Amino acid sequence: MFKLIILVKKKTALNDDGFVRYFLDTHAPLAKKMPGVRKYVVNFVKRPPNREPDYNAVAELWFDDISAMKNAFASPEGQLTQKDNEVFAESVTSLFTDEHSIA
Amino acid sequence: MFKLIILVKKKTALNDDGFVRYFLDTHAPLAKKMPGVRKYVVNFVKRPPNREPDYNAVAELWFDDISAMKNAFASPEGQLTQKDNEVFAESVTSLFTDEHSIA
Repeated sequence: MFKLIILVKKKTALNDDGFVRYFLDTHAPLAKKMPGVRKYVVNFVKRPPNREPDYNAVAELWFDDISAMKNAFASPEGQLTQKDNEVFAESVTSLFTDEHSIA
Repeated sequence: MFKLIILVKKKTALNDDGFVRYFLDTHAPLAKKMPGVRKYVVNFVKRPPNREPDYNAVAELWFDDISAMKNAFASPEGQLTQKDNEVFAESVTSLFTDEHSIA
């Protein structure tokens, strides 16, 4: 299985709660409609004391293989999902990974 | 459940294969011995064409709560695990997160 990890920095105009709400209520429902998404998890980063966190969310998406991921993002649903990033994300960093379960 | 996500950059002296082998054969067995680790996954980042990846691995560790995580890293096994980071990691970035399962 192919696992895409996306590190997200929120737009500074959004506060932490606004970011979480937008992600869960608007963005995630769009992204989960992409064809070929086998599993989808998002981790919201807790704010450290006295500084900005390095990232505000870490999204994880599983596909059968890299070709399934490319098809997902090329689909109309994938295009909408990427367009929606511009509403809430200052930056998105994509990592293509192999997952190993240790314990 | 409390989820710790660690973004790891490898030491440049290690090549990709050496990093993966060291992590799986030496580091992960140390880290999984820490008390209170409920689940442990590591994701190795595939090298993008023509550039260094932003990170080489993303580790995920689940604990009952933040206090269990602090106890884990304060334990003798936790101290050994952190000391071992110096062997293979140029940097480690820790993110304390809340996990949401979307699909």
